[in-house]
Order: sequence, then C-alpha cells, then structure tokens
Amino acid sequence: MLYSTIVIGDELLIGQVTDTNSGWIARHLAPFGWEPKNVKVIADDAGEILHAIDEAFAVTDVVLMTGGLGPTKDDITKATLCRYFGGEMVLNEDVKRNVDAMFERRGLPMNQLTAAQAMVPSSCRVIQNEVGTAPIMWFEREGKVLVAMPGVPFETQAMMERAVIPQLIKHFHSDVDIEYRTFVVIDYAESALAEKLDTFERQMPDYIHLAYLPKQGIIRLRLTGAHHDPQVINEDMERLSKQLHKILGKSIIADGDKSLSQIVGERLRELGLTLSTAESCTGGNVAHVITQVAGSSDYFMGSVVSYSNDVKHRVLGVDQGVLDTCGAVSQPVVEQMASGACHVCGTDCAVATSGVAGPGGGSPDKPVGTVWMAAKVGDIIMSQCHHMPGTRNQIIDRATTQVLIMLLKMLG
Amino acid sequence: MLYSTIVIGDELLIGQVTDTNSGWIARHLAPFGWEPKNVKVIADDAGEILHAIDEAFAVTDVVLMTGGLGPTKDDITKATLCRYFGGEMVLNEDVKRNVDAMFERRGLPMNQLTAAQAMVPSSCRVIQNEVGTAPIMWFEREGKVLVAMPGVPFETQAMMERAVIPQLIKHFHSDVDIEYRTFVVIDYAESALAEKLDTFERQMPDYIHLAYLPKQGIIRLRLTGAHHDPQVINEDMERLSKQLHKILGKSIIADGDKSLSQIVGERLRELGLTLSTAESCTGGNVAHVITQVAGSSDYFMGSVVSYSNDVKHRVLGVDQGVLDTCGAVSQPVVEQMASGACHVCGTDCAVATSGVAGPGGGSPDKPVGTVWMAAKVGDIIMSQCHHMPGTRNQIIDRATTQVLIMLLKMLG
Repeated sequence: MLYSTIVIGDELLIGQVTDTNSGWIARHLAPFGWEPKNVKVIADDAGEILHAIDEAFAVTDVVLMTGGLGPTKDDITKATLCRYFGGEMVLNEDVKRNVDAMFERRGLPMNQLTAAQAMVPSSCRVIQNEVGTAPIMWFEREGKVLVAMPGVPFETQAMMERAVIPQLIKHFHSDVDIEYRTFVVIDYAESALAEKLDTFERQMPDYIHLAYLPKQGIIRLRLTGAHHDPQVINEDMERLSKQLHKILGKSIIADGDKSLSQIVGERLRELGLTLSTAESCTGGNVAHVITQVAGSSDYFMGSVVSYSNDVKHRVLGVDQGVLDTCGAVSQPVVEQMASGACHVCGTDCAVATSGVAGPGGGSPDKPVGTVWMAAKVGDIIMSQCHHMPGTRNQIIDRATTQVLIMLLKMLG
Repeated sequence: MLYSTIVIGDELLIGQVTDTNSGWIARHLAPFGWEPKNVKVIADDAGEILHAIDEAFAVTDVVLMTGGLGPTKDDITKATLCRYFGGEMVLNEDVKRNVDAMFERRGLPMNQLTAAQAMVPSSCRVIQNEVGTAPIMWFEREGKVLVAMPGVPFETQAMMERAVIPQLIKHFHSDVDIEYRTFVVIDYAESALAEKLDTFERQMPDYIHLAYLPKQGIIRLRLTGAHHDPQVINEDMERLSKQLHKILGKSIIADGDKSLSQIVGERLRELGLTLSTAESCTGGNVAHVITQVAGSSDYFMGSVVSYSNDVKHRVLGVDQGVLDTCGAVSQPVVEQMASGACHVCGTDCAVATSGVAGPGGGSPDKPVGTVWMAAKVGDIIMSQCHHMPGTRNQIIDRATTQVLIMLLKMLG
C-alpha cells in the first residue's frame, strides 16, 4: 500500500523544528508492506493544506497528516479539513471530557483556546488522543482515507502504535505476511560489514531485503520479507538468521531491536551482577542511558559524576598524587575511578570515563576527543584510550557507547 | 523571495535518515528575506524527480534540491536534470581535477563510480564542491533557477555558505532587511501564553510575526520582521521587546535562543557559584544536560546519582530512619539529598530529584509521575512535588527541566 505524508507547521518549514514524524511513520508502517510515496512539509495555511491534500490523493489512496492541531489561533488545519471533507464544526463530548480530565490531572485551569480542541469536523470519526489534548481525526471519501494527527512526536507515535496503525491495517486488510529480524552488530564499520556479507546478500531469496542501520559504532541489520505464505517466510528467516550468526559470531550482541543499555541490563540481570558508573567527560550520560531502561534499578545502584578533580579524589578515592602526575585524563585515573565507583556504590561492576569533550581543554598530547575509559567486572579491570572525532555532544555519545560495549565484552 | 526545496533520497523517505538540510537552508536563507514555500521529500526516481520539479516551478521561481548526487550507481538525479533542462552529459574537467585531487589527498584509488561524478549536464553551470566530490549544478530557464546540491549535510552547508547563498542573493538582489528576536519564557502553557499576549499580538505591525516554539515546559517566542527600511524594523523590534518584557516580567528568563542549562550556567557564572546534583529518578540526566554546555566545568563540580537507597544513605548521608519512614520519594529525602550533594561535592548550590519514572514502581499515594525535587542555594533549600504525565523518558526530561527552572528562580 502506497501512502503520502503531509507535515504541517510553519516552525518545521522554516527550520526551527526538524520533522521526525514522517520518518517514524515510514519505519513503523514498513513492516506491513506500506511504502511512503512522498513527504510534503507545508505552512499552516488553508490554501497550502488544500493543495497538498489534492496532490497527495492524486497519487495515493492514503494520506497521513501530522501537525497543525495545537491550541494556538494560527492553527487552521481543522477548519480546512472540514471545508475539504464537508460537514460542519461540532463539539465532540468525548474529546471535551478527555481535555477536561487532562487539565484536571495537571491541575491547570481550562481556557478558551484549549476548549476549542473539542471542536471537530462532523465529517470525521474521532480517535481519542490518550496522551494529549488534540484529537486524531479519521476522514474517508470514495475509498480514500486521510488521518490527521497532532505534531508532537510523542503523541503521534503513541497514538499511531495504539490506534492508527491497527485501524489502517484492518481497514485495508493487507494479506501479505511480513516478517522482520533485527540483529545488533558491533566491531564493524558499515562498509566493512557490507563486504563481509557480500556473499550472504547475493544468496538471499529475492523477496527478502537486508538493511544496514548504523548509529554511533553500532549497526542494526534488519531482514525484511513480505510473502503470501507465512511458512516459507518463516523458514527462510530462520535459515538466514542462523547464517548471519555463523558469519558474525560474537559481533552480534543481540537478536531484536534493543538498545545497548537494554542489552547490558539483560546481561547483568542474567549474571546477577550490579553496576555503577564514575563519569568525568560523559557528565552523567552513561548513568542516564542506563536508567532510561525501565527496571534498571534492579542492577544499577548509582553513579558518581566526578567533574572536578576534587570529587574524583574525595568521593571516588582517586590518588591525589596520580591526579597531579598523570592528569585526570589518564589510564590510572579511570581505573581508580572504576574501582572507586564499585566501592562507593557497593557494586560488582563499574564503568568509568575521563576525557576531553571540547571544544576547549585540548592539548598537544591530549587533544579534544581523547577519552580514557575503564570497565571493572569483579576483580578484573580493563582500560582503553580512544580518539574520537566530532562535536562535544558526539564525543559524549560515542564515549558512552564505547564504554558500554567494553563492559558488555567483559561480561562475555 | 519564495523558493521550494526538493529533498531526494530513498533513505530519507523510508526514515533511515532524517532530513536536516531543508531546515538548515530555511534558517540560513531567512535573514535575506527568503521564505520556503514547501519541502518535498521524494525517492531516487526519475519520474518522481521530474514531477517534483514541475510542481515546484509551478509555485516558485527558485528550486533548491539536495541529495541524489552520491557516487552509488542508483543515483539518477543528474540524468533526469539533463532530460529536464536539455543538453547532454559532458565531462567537466574542473570537476575531474577536483575529484582527482580529493582522492589523492585521502590516498584512495579512483574508481569508475567516482569518475562518473565528473560527468554533468551541458545545460548547467558548475559550482565546484570544495569539501566533497559531487559537483553543485546551477540551472536557469526562463528566469527560473534550480540549484542541485549533494545530500551530505556537511557538504550542503559548507557550499551553501561559501557559494550558493551569495550567488542566489546576487542573482535576485533582494533589498529587504530582516530582523529576529527570540525570548525564552517559562511559567506558561502555550495556550495561556497566547491568551496573555492576545492584545500585544493584535497591536503588532503587520510586517512582524510572532511564533511560539514550546518544548518541555519552556516556550521560545520569536519575533520575525522583514522591511525595506532597517531603521523602522529596528525601532519596532526594540519597542516590541520592551513591551514583551513588561508583560511577561521574570517569566522571560533569557533574550536570545539559549538552552535552559546555558541560562543556568551563565547565572551561576555571574554569581560566582558552584553546582552539584543528587539524582535518583533523573538518573544522571540533570548532570548530563548541564555538562552538554562547553565550559560547564567552571561551575559544575559533579553529581551523585543515588539510584539505590544505600547510595542515598551512605554517599549522600540521607538519614536511614527518614528513608524507612517517609520512603525515597519524599520531601525530607530530596532536601537531604540536595544538602548531601553540596557537602560531598563541595558546592554552593545543588539540585536533587527523587520520583517514580515508571512504568513500574507506582503506588496509590505515589503514582508514576510523582517527582519530589529540591534546590539548595547557600543555606536556603526549597522543595516541590510534581505530578508529571507521559512516558518514563518524558518524566525524566520534564523533571530535569523543572528542577533547573526551580534553581534558576532561586538564583533570582
């Protein structure tokens, strides 16, 4: 099934905000064999909206629209949809109750602008927004469907998953069986991995596609197949999975689309081990990504972000002489930081980072991007020095990823 | 001047990569009075490209195109442009020299795919790509202009700044003066702020526009104006700025587009104060956002992420009896955490968080989203309890924002 995406919003068009909804929608409809024909970003303007809908329906039967539904007065999407699909603006009691309840929970007074959210075109079927106030609107005409959703990514994503995707699939009942297999791969650059998998790719059945999704030193490999016979696709996927594991061995750190901190967390849980972090240049980001995982309090005890040398020495017990002699960005310091974290937080394992995230603070022997990192598992400590390219934030992110990969390899 | 942007690339359309070029272009052409009419993202397909160019030229005289110029064999953009604008594919010696030199500098052997980059439509004027191998192509027909640029953001941005923007401005010699003013506002929901500014907005000169850019409890207000007389726009902007400050008072926490952690950092630096954090539910994220600011080591000393009660007690010195009686998510515990952070990290100020980020761990009296937070400045400690909606990550982000706002208000 082909669809068009229309993204509405002056703030997106003029580049104040980046559209991530269209990509999210594409990635999450792909498993059902749905392909985006194009994405159009337009202003909050009735003429533009009408023109974009006409263009989109000229080439696809489904139009997914995000944005233009906020409570400020320049939002004219609803009135325009009413004009396009007919009917009149009516008060929807369910939406009003939803908005009222949301404001009550947050202890905010209702105002006129927000009350206007309960007005919808009579020509649409409303899907309640369970995580926000702007209603989702489903329009149909001559076998074609337009779904208008809010622009806030969290709301679009939550409601696409909970309601819009299931209802679209049911409406168009695609009868192709889709299967996905995702593998999280470390140790390879994208081009090196593509070379390694050259023969494998050439032997894949035609209906199965292999995608490379690289991000910060980790590559997600995704096999996608669409076939009318579920058994065929299932057997082929099993066979290809086994082949990939055989070719890549321990470089596959997980089957399925998991984050690195989820994979580390699962491994710690299996082994019954606890973790802490001691962070200098990563500034708390390692602890942050670990605690983004629900239930991480089972194995993660805490962290000492020792940004100053004083905290490294006094809280983590790093030797003052070593700090003075070797400097904070050095092997003995990160190793002592890891030991200190285990001691202070009472954990079996720890990771530690100390580096120059920049843009200032670099020196000829320790330029910006130099990061020492250590991981401790039981009595074993390992340390590495990396030289990372990029901006301050990229260096922080890369160091976070690398130190967690280091820990994962030690956990075996 | 109105223009259209066409973004070419399967990887963008299916959501593997997010388009940031169109937003960058919009932000960097705005100062010259150039406005994007729309952005269209399409596949690497000749029919789609031709159709998109026709559509774009139907509404604007300028089309800026990014992507579809890489060395891989499926790039058909150049052939399609040749078909659209006429002429034939010819070898451009300057491009060839540029590609040869680039490969020589990088010590790479030239291959056939890359050699193909030197072939361009005879109907275009070539702008040398100084930072990559794909040439930039400038086409003209009947007073209309299309510029095709590479998709790699670094190359597009560098060459837009060095060559494309100056040449566009020269070609169309726009004589309008543009001004922007941005204000960072707290204390208001978007709808409440719009209500508060209703009269102000109605009294603004017609040529000035006010945009609301909300993100996590903070709203950026941006005034934009385009006028042929620089003095008029400057005086109007000054007057409107003063009015906004008068209406919103201390709710404007900064003039200019700054992040909350930048604003907090600047205030701490002005006052000569140091900061630490004690984090439970935010798991290191407060420290992370503070240390994303370059130079934050001047005022930020460190953090104790006390995820377990044991770390709260042993490292931060939170009273075990209080932990047992009141629970970790309570007013006395966050206050003691803030004091503990100041003590342990040797700082003048501290912020602390303890809450239920979910999805598990909620109880009837402390449901998911309950977050206690405290801020300490000198001898004064203040604490608040928030009930936050959303997912685990949203609760973490919102708590991070709120505790920094709390600190900022105490800093005065």
